Amino acid sequence: MNKEIAIGIDIGGTNTVIGFADEAGNIIFRDSIRTDEYAEADKFVKELSDHISIGIQSIDPDCIIKGIGIGAPNGNFYKGTIEFAPNLRWTGIIPLADMVKSYFNIPVILTNDANAAASGEMIYGAARGMKDFIVITLGTGLGSGIVVNGKIVYGHDGFAGELGHTIVDSHGRLCGCGRQGCLETYVSATGITRTVIQFLEESETVSSLRGIPTKELTSKKIYDAAKEGDQLAVDAFDFTCQILGLKLADSVAYTSPQAIILFGGLAKAAEFIFEPTKRYMEESMLKIYSNKVQIIPSQLPESDAAVLGAASLIWDLDN
Amino acid sequence: MNKEIAIGIDIGGTNTVIGFADEAGNIIFRDSIRTDEYAEADKFVKELSDHISIGIQSIDPDCIIKGIGIGAPNGNFYKGTIEFAPNLRWTGIIPLADMVKSYFNIPVILTNDANAAASGEMIYGAARGMKDFIVITLGTGLGSGIVVNGKIVYGHDGFAGELGHTIVDSHGRLCGCGRQGCLETYVSATGITRTVIQFLEESETVSSLRGIPTKELTSKKIYDAAKEGDQLAVDAFDFTCQILGLKLADSVAYTSPQAIILFGGLAKAAEFIFEPTKRYMEESMLKIYSNKVQIIPSQLPESDAAVLGAASLIWDLDN
Repeated sequence: MNKEIAIGIDIGGTNTVIGFADEAGNIIFRDSIRTDEYAEADKFVKELSDHISIGIQSIDPDCIIKGIGIGAPNGNFYKGTIEFAPNLRWTGIIPLADMVKSYFNIPVILTNDANAAASGEMIYGAARGMKDFIVITLGTGLGSGIVVNGKIVYGHDGFAGELGHTIVDSHGRLCGCGRQGCLETYVSATGITRTVIQFLEESETVSSLRGIPTKELTSKKIYDAAKEGDQLAVDAFDFTCQILGLKLADSVAYTSPQAIILFGGLAKAAEFIFEPTKRYMEESMLKIYSNKVQIIPSQLPESDAAVLGAASLIWDLDN
Repeated sequence: MNKEIAIGIDIGGTNTVIGFADEAGNIIFRDSIRTDEYAEADKFVKELSDHISIGIQSIDPDCIIKGIGIGAPNGNFYKGTIEFAPNLRWTGIIPLADMVKSYFNIPVILTNDANAAASGEMIYGAARGMKDFIVITLGTGLGSGIVVNGKIVYGHDGFAGELGHTIVDSHGRLCGCGRQGCLETYVSATGITRTVIQFLEESETVSSLRGIPTKELTSKKIYDAAKEGDQLAVDAFDFTCQILGLKLADSVAYTSPQAIILFGGLAKAAEFIFEPTKRYMEESMLKIYSNKVQIIPSQLPESDAAVLGAASLIWDLDN
């Protein structure tokens, strides 16, 4: 039988990564182009298509290309569009799936990056065999992909699954979305940095983090300090997990998932994230859900996670 | 063609109602038995089955009985069980669907009452033609049924959709579930009564409600006072809607529904519930969802709503 391949495209603000994946998750061709060099989306798509074509020519001609899956910020699954993405140069509504499709006569599926991550975990990663789970991506913001009964939840408009913008405290921290107290202002790489700055201001606790200019503070530096036993850094992780645990208890009351998968930069601080988040979630949760919901790390290889997620959208078509 | 009939059973703490419904939602046979007279579930099921049999004998013999749908407190769809229902006399786990099935050789589907209500709205009521919506039942507590892509969300264990137990304030009102600050302690017939008692204590506002002993306060009396212009009663509705609106904004971020349907006793105070809840939800909601989500009343006839919801579980089998 000829080998089947799905092409995954991960569009980020700076770079766009291309990967050709087989059903087992092996990447047989890799490439990337700069996203931010193209002021116009059509020129970007032309360049992207050229690179995809080069990839197609370079692989075994017996391979069957099943389709192209695209993960993009503010991607809309139903319409195949990127809509008002703040980190991209293209403003308004970009019909990106149709633009790519005009170059290749195969299925093109587009969704937002967190939904692509959820699809990736289901096909290749920690959620294989699961039908109900949630993926939370802890990067600059907090993204999420919700899977119910083996399908990503898109909602009536394609924009379901924005847990980063559920409210922790309606008088709380100002969010990039214009509202106050969204979960991602507390629980994300940026969120924990804001927590440390707040703790440094409010307390006199001795901390190695006092030596770092606030503009240079990162979640990585907070993690390093916590590993060294810095109490303020440890407390900042605890505060983050307390808020995340409380909101995940709410999440369980919505879709009762078998597992919640944490992914992204902040989740790398594993020993300060997984156990306390689980503990706080259990404390806050309705009893009927007690000890049923796992909180686990992603099982996608970090360097290829985004393209594997995008490629997995194509395998999911068969279900 | 022979007429097809679905039997709906609504099990409540006091009464159990039986209704035979056709596909258009007409009830062609009605009956009821006392739930609370039976200390043992098997004796209850025997009596229920006798009444169902009488119904079957009384209708046109050409009718085809498609199945029996049951709505029950703490009902589990996957297992067909009633589990630890606080308002029923039968303790532990009752395999009710199997017990009913032993009398009738037809499909028996059991779910909790809020999920049955959601199914009823989809088949017979306000959600006809919708694939993504949420039903909120505002009775003694707050129940909910979430529909995604035309299917009720059950989650991995059958217990999804407990929005009444998402947290408004983790230091807030004590809930029957043993935790603090659950949504239903604020937003339900009981919740608004607690709000009025709190407002009466905290303020000196003149109110007709001061003349009613707190044990005799009901949401109906609060509604009557609000209609008369009683400011404290009006404020209590406003407070209730503010909390509901905020939490519905969160709900939209989960499953992005086309509509949220409010049902039950408290929703009857329509002029004090729908417009303010929508307004507060819009104020709290992420911009991408603005002006997309309707908040609408149930369209099931009140007296038959519960049995129609239960019967609709059987029509839903065909999808």
